Amino acid sequence: MDLNKFFNPKSIAVIGATIDKNKVGYAILFNLLRGEKRNLYPINPAHQEILDLPCYRSVLDIKNPVELAIIIVKAEFVLSVLIECGQKKIPNAIVISSGFKELGKNGENLEEKLKQICKKYKISLLGPNCLGIIDSLSDLNASFAIQKPFRGHIGFLSQSGALGTAMLDWTNNKGIGFSKFISLGNEAVLSELDFLEFLGNDPDTKAIFLYLEKITDGEKFIKITKKITAKKPIVVLKAGRSVRGLKAVMSHTGSLAPQDSIFETACKKSKIITTDSLHSFFNLAKLFHIRTFKPLRQIAILTNGGGPSVIATDLIDLSKTLEIAKISNKTLKELKKILPPAAAINNPIDILGDASATRYEEALKILVKEKNIDGILLILTPQFMTESEKIAEILTSYAKQKPVIPVFIGGESLENAQKVFRKKGLVNFDFPKDAIESLDALGAVKLIKKKKPIPAKSPDKTELKMMKISQTTKILNDFNLKLEGQLIRKKKDLNKLFKTKKEQLLAMKIISQNIIHKTDIRGVKLNIKNLTEAEKSWDLIIKSAKKKYPKAKIEGVLIQQMANGKEIIIGMKRDQVFGPVIIFGLGGMFVEALKDIALGIAPVNQNEALKMIGEIKGFNILKGLRGEKSVNLSKIADIIVKLSKLSLAHPEIKEIDLNPVIVNEKTAHIVDARFMV
Amino acid sequence: MDLNKFFNPKSIAVIGATIDKNKVGYAILFNLLRGEKRNLYPINPAHQEILDLPCYRSVLDIKNPVELAIIIVKAEFVLSVLIECGQKKIPNAIVISSGFKELGKNGENLEEKLKQICKKYKISLLGPNCLGIIDSLSDLNASFAIQKPFRGHIGFLSQSGALGTAMLDWTNNKGIGFSKFISLGNEAVLSELDFLEFLGNDPDTKAIFLYLEKITDGEKFIKITKKITAKKPIVVLKAGRSVRGLKAVMSHTGSLAPQDSIFETACKKSKIITTDSLHSFFNLAKLFHIRTFKPLRQIAILTNGGGPSVIATDLIDLSKTLEIAKISNKTLKELKKILPPAAAINNPIDILGDASATRYEEALKILVKEKNIDGILLILTPQFMTESEKIAEILTSYAKQKPVIPVFIGGESLENAQKVFRKKGLVNFDFPKDAIESLDALGAVKLIKKKKPIPAKSPDKTELKMMKISQTTKILNDFNLKLEGQLIRKKKDLNKLFKTKKEQLLAMKIISQNIIHKTDIRGVKLNIKNLTEAEKSWDLIIKSAKKKYPKAKIEGVLIQQMANGKEIIIGMKRDQVFGPVIIFGLGGMFVEALKDIALGIAPVNQNEALKMIGEIKGFNILKGLRGEKSVNLSKIADIIVKLSKLSLAHPEIKEIDLNPVIVNEKTAHIVDARFMV
Repeated sequence: MDLNKFFNPKSIAVIGATIDKNKVGYAILFNLLRGEKRNLYPINPAHQEILDLPCYRSVLDIKNPVELAIIIVKAEFVLSVLIECGQKKIPNAIVISSGFKELGKNGENLEEKLKQICKKYKISLLGPNCLGIIDSLSDLNASFAIQKPFRGHIGFLSQSGALGTAMLDWTNNKGIGFSKFISLGNEAVLSELDFLEFLGNDPDTKAIFLYLEKITDGEKFIKITKKITAKKPIVVLKAGRSVRGLKAVMSHTGSLAPQDSIFETACKKSKIITTDSLHSFFNLAKLFHIRTFKPLRQIAILTNGGGPSVIATDLIDLSKTLEIAKISNKTLKELKKILPPAAAINNPIDILGDASATRYEEALKILVKEKNIDGILLILTPQFMTESEKIAEILTSYAKQKPVIPVFIGGESLENAQKVFRKKGLVNFDFPKDAIESLDALGAVKLIKKKKPIPAKSPDKTELKMMKISQTTKILNDFNLKLEGQLIRKKKDLNKLFKTKKEQLLAMKIISQNIIHKTDIRGVKLNIKNLTEAEKSWDLIIKSAKKKYPKAKIEGVLIQQMANGKEIIIGMKRDQVFGPVIIFGLGGMFVEALKDIALGIAPVNQNEALKMIGEIKGFNILKGLRGEKSVNLSKIADIIVKLSKLSLAHPEIKEIDLNPVIVNEKTAHIVDARFMV
Repeated sequence: MDLNKFFNPKSIAVIGATIDKNKVGYAILFNLLRGEKRNLYPINPAHQEILDLPCYRSVLDIKNPVELAIIIVKAEFVLSVLIECGQKKIPNAIVISSGFKELGKNGENLEEKLKQICKKYKISLLGPNCLGIIDSLSDLNASFAIQKPFRGHIGFLSQSGALGTAMLDWTNNKGIGFSKFISLGNEAVLSELDFLEFLGNDPDTKAIFLYLEKITDGEKFIKITKKITAKKPIVVLKAGRSVRGLKAVMSHTGSLAPQDSIFETACKKSKIITTDSLHSFFNLAKLFHIRTFKPLRQIAILTNGGGPSVIATDLIDLSKTLEIAKISNKTLKELKKILPPAAAINNPIDILGDASATRYEEALKILVKEKNIDGILLILTPQFMTESEKIAEILTSYAKQKPVIPVFIGGESLENAQKVFRKKGLVNFDFPKDAIESLDALGAVKLIKKKKPIPAKSPDKTELKMMKISQTTKILNDFNLKLEGQLIRKKKDLNKLFKTKKEQLLAMKIISQNIIHKTDIRGVKLNIKNLTEAEKSWDLIIKSAKKKYPKAKIEGVLIQQMANGKEIIIGMKRDQVFGPVIIFGLGGMFVEALKDIALGIAPVNQNEALKMIGEIKGFNILKGLRGEKSVNLSKIADIIVKLSKLSLAHPEIKEIDLNPVIVNEKTAHIVDARFMV
């Protein structure tokens, strides 16, 4: 199949051309005439001449060969004119007309017949129900789009005509061009896969954009796209992602893989960039328009405003693949030399609100030479005296040495700068996020790995210390909270304890202000049944504590009943700005591995506490899975509320861990408590 | 403190005014002269006259009282002129000059002295290092912003001057106005809290926008904003969210509450809308500019293009608070009457690519009367013959009856429509997402609850059935996979089994094609020690199975050793488009409560399998928390790879559950397997 003839035919029959300017049959002929000169044959039995071209009754009346037929007649007449195209041996046809599969049963039948005719006469057919095609290089506009796109290197394939025109309208406004534009329609014969393959091989197309609502064949889709993305990027905007109408499935596994995540997985396999919004789709078009095909990792931010650069720094830090470039000392020195003392030279480079075009240029000149920088985000806000137009000119010239991505934020005063970009084949990103997200999406498919962030400095042991257990217990009691168990200070007291205890399993835990993580040093023994076991455990616990922390002051050993239920963690952290922040989460692996927590700012009332509990992802687990009964949520809320009051009353306490709290249907037990002061 | 005098002073001294057009001292006086007529006193010992106004050497030379001083002199001269302001009893001052705290140590000292002077002379001071203020109602521009904003009802407070000007420039371009604009600067005296409170009480301000980098006092912030949001919305763009430089904390709890989530929690408490990008910040400004203060829930989509309406429907479905409005039969009938047969009348209402202004109007006329619709998203794509300007006119008139939110997607051809919106006080949203996200953010703080989505239809029992265990085992064996244990078909065979078994704990499970969830019907017994227990369990299992599923064909009971390790689930779902999709996740509560899974499309090789394993959030748990050893990841990958091959070879199998697979340091056991055909 040679789709090239679609895009640069020598002769075209326009079947259903008309003189009525309000009709598509006019628009198409008009658009064709606006482009490269070709042999055009309007077909319409009602006219002698259209737009100064002689008009024919049928393609069969044309003497010369015809390479492409464009059909715009009403649906019911399409079949008969298509047969004539077959008889005329026209290899390629575009059916613009609607009234087929999209209308349901009757339309489907008509479309089936259309397919059969194409098969019989070996016609490659695009459509029906489409907008047509555009090739900006061969200067062919075989569509009824009102926009005439610029030349460019982006190929665009759309399963929605409306979205196609919206894209054309938008890109035209920004000066972004296309190599080829194809509106796919119902894909009766040629599918998105055929055109994808074609664009993959098209040397004029450097990046492919796809709007998809359905995929004809998943396996082929992966195979074709995998091959293409090794050479050029593919961006897909996939609609129809939401859960609506998700088919019911039977097995457990089945329910875990909704359609949209399967599509995401397929795209990942093929290294396709996916987006879920038109906005990011368009931003990616900007990125490839300015020929940023290679991922950038180390980013320098050059700015005349603090706020936007703080925002950009945040976004880069949070991105998957981008980093704030670490600038070499040599470059820092050079920057220092040319910039005013108040300027920030460590990336982000803030050259201040009064930055002139000259100052931008001097900084750029230095930055493009720095090896640690892969690309420069040039942020500009239109302040008093900001020469945005001049700065745009300068930017475009330095962009030849190293990618410089413009982020001019504003509107009214930037119009001339935008014109400069347009003229020079660049385009502005309206916000830092637009540029950063697009770059990050490109990096992510290219599997660029971010360097590990510099770890937060290790905890300063002298900063906070743990409160004594006696004091902790007292404060808890003041707020009607109870730490389970009994503190035994001497081994011999175990004897006394076991005299009064009935038969039940016990837990024993080391208590020392100097030991925060008891389990880590084997300071906890569980399931203790009797005095003998308890005494043995006592020795083991004390021994290992003394081994790990020889200087630790041991207060004793806490003896508790083994509690049944689910582990939760309730805590407090005193924030410098907002005061006590209450933290709630599922204990154990959940909180450690998944950081699945809810926060509340004191004072937290019962209602707010219940809301917090409901906020965690693992809430189902507390509510009880598969018919299991719910734990007592109001008992949890009760502890949260009391902890909130306690924290407000005791500003000297900086952090609190009630971890674990064990909760069941009936009640909640505080099994361990640490107060840090 | 009466901040009103800041915004409508009768007399203003501009200290540091100048005749040099490139200087801020000129710009401010110029901006003041552009506004409402006030008594203006330029102060500069070097000039006699500036911009035709008599110039003074000092404020002390002015005979009349002065209500506001604006200070633009160099930092080192600020203190002395401020003392003169004090002596002159000027109550309010704005210090534009930079060179204070933002410069470090020396600047801090200077700023401290500034504060002391203000205290001594009771001067309310804004700044230093700020852009100034604007009041569009009193027509005061006491800033050096080049933009002159329109009148409007949005109050804007910014801790970044650059961001302030960018916002002004952008809003000016869209015709969005402000009531008041305040650039806060260093907040030496007056803070964001003072102006927040003021804007909260300002009748001309209907919504407050805040750009924040820091908060002076968390408790006060919550108190003040809580009060305001009961009356008008507050939107905050908070910068400085990323993890960089997060302080190390000591307790477990402490590490769970990074600064940015605490801020989020505080905002939630105060019902503040927060955003993390300028783009959404600006979009929210659009929402409040068009006076959508009340959340909308039931949304109708009126469109001339399929693609964008599919995208919009997705976004509404995925939103927290919005729903696709269910349109009444009466309205549907009326729509049907006026629309062409190919139009879709069920929401989204797609009135087709050739929709004229009249068709849009006829549809709008009906939709604004429908009670089930809270608001209409009017989507337009510029297609051939789309009368965007006329449609904009029509929209603005129907927007008076019911919120109609314009989403005209495109660029070039929409300029006239944009002008119409501007003239009528409306503004266009460029993309469906921009409007929907903004509406959703508003709904979320107002605690609008979404109705429960219609549940997916219950599984059709006849659709898939479970494969026999013998066949399942055979196929697994073909691919070198082994289901643990031994199937016992008759109770008496238990005897034989226990003769050969050494002492170990066993598990017993019912096996029947008709029983999918074994545990639910008590079809599983664990920790069985001997024959007696096994026989007892046999009876219990069979009895309860027969009770729950009297017609079930019972194949036997599977006897397995109790395996030690972590539960994972490996599965397959055959997708219609992409074929076998392999699913991997942590078993038990993790997969059920958290849906923490990774997908892969067959064929999955060893590398891809290992990547899948690393993708789940609970990966840490497999790698081993707190010094625990990692499970054997390559054994898991092995099963994934084999299952992928198996699935490709057996297209008749539609879904597979290997659940649980129990994995430890050494190996992985498939403990249960279900094949659905």
